[in-house]
This record gives sequence, structure tokens and C-alpha cells, in this order.
Amino acid sequence: MTITNRQLIYVKAPTAAIDPSVTTGTFNLKSTTIASKDNVPDDKVLVRIHYLALEPAMRQWLTAKRSYIAPVKIGSIMRGQSIAQVLSVGSSLKSQYKVGDWVIAYSGWQEYAFLGAKEAQKISVPAGCKPTDAMSVLGMTGLTAYFGMMDVGKPKAGDTVVVSGAAGATGMVAGQIAKIQGAKRVIGIAGSKDKCEFLCRELGFDVAINYKDEDWKKQLKEATPEYIDVYFDNVGGEILDACLGRAAQFSRFVICGAISQYNVAKPKGPANIMQVISQRVKMQGYIVFDYAKQYPDALQDLAKWLTQGKIKRKEHIVKGGLESAPQSLVDLYKGVNTGKMMVEVVPAEEGIKAKL
Amino acid sequence: MTITNRQLIYVKAPTAAIDPSVTTGTFNLKSTTIASKDNVPDDKVLVRIHYLALEPAMRQWLTAKRSYIAPVKIGSIMRGQSIAQVLSVGSSLKSQYKVGDWVIAYSGWQEYAFLGAKEAQKISVPAGCKPTDAMSVLGMTGLTAYFGMMDVGKPKAGDTVVVSGAAGATGMVAGQIAKIQGAKRVIGIAGSKDKCEFLCRELGFDVAINYKDEDWKKQLKEATPEYIDVYFDNVGGEILDACLGRAAQFSRFVICGAISQYNVAKPKGPANIMQVISQRVKMQGYIVFDYAKQYPDALQDLAKWLTQGKIKRKEHIVKGGLESAPQSLVDLYKGVNTGKMMVEVVPAEEGIKAKL
Repeated sequence: MTITNRQLIYVKAPTAAIDPSVTTGTFNLKSTTIASKDNVPDDKVLVRIHYLALEPAMRQWLTAKRSYIAPVKIGSIMRGQSIAQVLSVGSSLKSQYKVGDWVIAYSGWQEYAFLGAKEAQKISVPAGCKPTDAMSVLGMTGLTAYFGMMDVGKPKAGDTVVVSGAAGATGMVAGQIAKIQGAKRVIGIAGSKDKCEFLCRELGFDVAINYKDEDWKKQLKEATPEYIDVYFDNVGGEILDACLGRAAQFSRFVICGAISQYNVAKPKGPANIMQVISQRVKMQGYIVFDYAKQYPDALQDLAKWLTQGKIKRKEHIVKGGLESAPQSLVDLYKGVNTGKMMVEVVPAEEGIKAKL
Repeated sequence: MTITNRQLIYVKAPTAAIDPSVTTGTFNLKSTTIASKDNVPDDKVLVRIHYLALEPAMRQWLTAKRSYIAPVKIGSIMRGQSIAQVLSVGSSLKSQYKVGDWVIAYSGWQEYAFLGAKEAQKISVPAGCKPTDAMSVLGMTGLTAYFGMMDVGKPKAGDTVVVSGAAGATGMVAGQIAKIQGAKRVIGIAGSKDKCEFLCRELGFDVAINYKDEDWKKQLKEATPEYIDVYFDNVGGEILDACLGRAAQFSRFVICGAISQYNVAKPKGPANIMQVISQRVKMQGYIVFDYAKQYPDALQDLAKWLTQGKIKRKEHIVKGGLESAPQSLVDLYKGVNTGKMMVEVVPAEEGIKAKL
């Protein structure tokens, strides 16, 4: 029996923003056929993709030069992580997988994929956790927050910590980790009143500032009477600049992302850069992949905090199938999400909820 | 016998560039009278100032908010270090100083000063060195280069090191230290053909780039085929930005100064800031004063390198007396100097050369 596999192919490099049309835009929808699910190569598993993860870094994967990762090639399937279920196992992998296993898959944006063992990591769900956590708190997102905060930011008891993009998947974990580490004041910056309320009410942030308020800089100043010891940056641009203006002496500026700049043809640098000298700021970029050897220990901490309720998860799941991924990515840059943004490829009723 | 003391008083905060007129500009010349050189307070010495040091940081001392040092107050003598000679010693300091001693003085811009023991540090001149070294290689300038390079930049054997403002007093020491530390390629960026020739011919820089050349960015690219491991920044602005564009993975950006930005009403941030993430750059500011406890060890290294000829000194001495200091400071920002810029307050013939 043949299977129809739909894929999103990266066809046109964006100059600034992504064009979400799946017929004429950045990515095009294409159908192919997989011969048979009983005809899997020896060293592969055939998986069905249930959830795609959307990442702010994706825009950079398309056109950035000299990035930490090779750009996605025009004509290939858009790169991306997913949660997938094993449909069929090649002969040499039968000791490692069985049909029905759930995996974190490096599958790209498609509905089915043949994957080698390195591209399909079996999910073990700690007690009190759930499989989709493997794409948020217990996945790259949580690990990114973890290493940025623990290894670069290093908040101490009494510190003032500011997180931008705080209602995003990484930001909300970063802020909660700062609180766990004893920070005195954790301030989130986000893009709506609802997000701000969520951060304070649900996640225990001390203050949340809506950067769309006209007086957000004044609010930032008032919220940081002892200046900023740790700034965890997901957005770059004007917010990074304003936070530099509030940097405390010997502060650490964790440069995790710059979502406000990814879709801009000419990025803008922070005019307050001279504060780096006068306040002796350490501004440091990092990539989670550099910490691969420390993932197991970090995941243990994250799982413990998640089950203890010290970290709360939040998912933003977009229904609408594979074809909604490009528009969802555009929406991610607009900041529509609170928490980890995922595209549901298989409706939950017939997919993950029915089977787990 | 009374002494006439001339002073430069900071009278008007500049909005952008310093106005060098000593009658209507940023600093005004004023004459006062010192009662008698035999009437020194018990806990002071009376000194005559021979050389004033000019520092790129001075512009920041005037108007920067939240700087590492309190701003100079309107109406007070302009702050600055000098080399001075003791004319008279108060009774309680007679065991520490004798008439004729040479000191590094925190005197400000004037011809004579009464100073406490903390403000007048006796100069001991290591063999093969000279008193004015205490304001360049063996003073704050050399120490600034030393800690920036040794503690922040940490060049390793094989590294590519770029120094901006390389023909300035700090830059030229920084570049030479990088070479001593085994850097494979030391590249200086400076503002004239003569400076560039001097850096390569006299100081052993591997490449020097004149940023006034139209194709300086192309030259920078060609000079850094393995990208930049350590960037020692004295200038900020466009050159910092270009060097960020050439940052190697895990590179260290030592933010020592930003002379191109001090006199600008609206400083410009580096648009390549996103390289900080993709190349995992550590960009760090520092202030030499934070290393005060380590000065003695550092000075030992610097004196050793100076006497061994591994570090070469270069002074740019402006004749013309105290009143030439404001114009000299303007010239410093224009980059007229190669090496440490000093104003000769007392002509050398009747001053330091005659007496040492």
C-alpha cells in the first residue's frame, strides 16, 4: 500500500519577511509517494510526524551567512524538529525501536519520513511530564534557556534579571530558572497585556512589561531600581539597547536570540554599546549545541523542576496541518504565541491522544 | 615669594565636540596665586607639573552619565594625570618625599598643585626605562593594554588578533603584548599611511590597515583569512562593526574604548551584533582601575618587556605649555598622535632633561 507524503520545500530565499503562501511563497507544498510502509531500508525507521516545532532561529537557517549551522538549501525540505511515531522499523534497528514508539525526529517539514537512528530519538517521558514536553521544557527550548541562564547569565541571590521575549518558549523557562536560582527581581518583557498577566500570575515573574506600551522604557527604569545584573535577550534591537542603558556593573548579557532583527533587511546595533565599557558588561552569545555533552544532567534538572511545579510549561498548538507551518512561522515572528509554538500535523483525536 | 599658578577650569559641558578655546570654550584659563612655596600644609607636597597626560577617556569624564568615575564638575580644574616634581614638602611627609623627587601626580590641568600622599606617587625608574614611561607603557596606558589583553582577550598561540586605534598609546602596547603571547597574526588598524608603516616596521605588527583607505574593509577581510580570535577595540563605531563581521567562533572582543563615538551626539551601535550569537562571541568591557591589586605584577612584566625591547615605546609630546592642552585633546580625537600624547608644561630644557 502506498502512502502519500506531503512536504514543504524551501523554494525561494526571503530578502526580509517570509512569504507564507504554500504555492507561491518561501515554501511550496509538494506531494510524493512512499512505496510501502513494509519496504523500509534496513537502517531506517519510517515515522509519521504529529507535531512540528517552530523555532525563532528558523529564519536564520534560511539566509544567514557564516551561521552556526549550514543554511537550508533551496529545493530541500524545510529543516525542523518534530514529534513523530514509528510506523515501521528496518531490520537492523529492530532491537532499538518498535512500531508505535514516539520519537523526537529531525524530520523537517513533512508528514512522513525515513530516518536513521541519529535522527529519531526515542522519547522517555518522566513521571508527571508529557511527550510534547520533549519539544519545549525538556527539549532544545528548555536546554537553551538552561545553559544561557546557568552558564552565561549565572544569576545570584539578590540579582535583578530581565528576560525579553519572556512569553516565548525559551524566555519563560529562562525567567523561571532565574527565580529558582534566587534572583530577587525577575522582569519579563513581552508584547501584550495578556502575556504580561500570564507571566506574573502563572509563572511568578515579579514584573512584566508590555513593550507595546508607549512608556515601556519608563516602566523598565522603574522596575530596575538596582539596574540589571542579568539580561537574557531573545529579541535584540531596541529592547537590547534599552536594557544596556540599565546595565549594572559587571552585569552579564546573555545573547540568545534577536527575533526582532531576523526579518529586517538592515539590522540595527545597540547605540548604548558604550555602557559595555563603563559598566564592565560581559555580553556573550552561545548556541545550545555547544553544550551537547551536558544535556543529560541539564534534562535531569529541568524534569525535576517541571515535576515539582517550579517550572510551568505552556504550549501554543496551531491546528491546521502541515500547510499551516509557513503562516505559523510568520505568526511566531509577530509574537502571537505564548509558550512553545507547534503545528499539529495529525489531529490529536486520531493521533497522540488516542495512542498514548 | 608668591607663585603664579595657571589652571584650566572646566566651564562649559560640550554637547558633541570639545571647544578648544581657552577663553570662550570648554575649558578656561585662569591665574591664581600660591602664597609661598615655604608655606605647605603638613600633609601635602607642593609640586610643579612638567607633563600632562592626554587620555581618550577624558571626553567621557565630562558628560557621561553612570560612568565608572564621577564626572568632572563644572567650575573645577580639569582632571588629569601628570608628571611633576616636588618643590616643597609638608612636615608630616618629610620621611616620604624630598625636594626634587619626581612623581606621577593626580594634579589636574594646572602648573602647580598641593597634593596629598595618595595623589603623588613617587616614580621609580627601572633600568633602561625613563620617567615619562610612567605615563605610557609603565602607567595607566600600559596597564590598560595589559589587563585587556591578558585578562579579557587572552590570545593563544596561533590566534589572529586585531587592534583598533593601534597607533594610539594603548593600542600599540596591546598589539605588542599579543605578539609576545604568541599570536600568529597581529593586525593594527590606524588612521594614516605613516602610522601603518610605523606599526609594521617599528613594532612588528604583521599587517596594518589604514581605515581611511576606501577599501579598508576588503583589506581587513584579506588580512583575516582565519577570522578574528581577539579584537581589542579602542574606537567603537564602524570598525567594531566590521570586526564583528569577521569574528571567529568563540572569539573575545575586548571593549577598551570607543574614541570614534565619544564626541558624537548620537552614538551608533554595531549592526553585526547578531554575529555575537552565531559565532559565540564574548564581548566584554573593563576598566583598568578594577585591577588595582594586580598592578605591581603587571608593571613587572611590562618593565621586563620594555627593557628587553619586546615592547617599544612611542611618545607624542606637544610643546606649547598648559594652554595647549584643550587643542591637544581635540587633536587626540582627530588621531594626530602616534603613541602616548603628552603636553609639555615646562620646556624640557629647563625641566625634566636638565634635572634628571
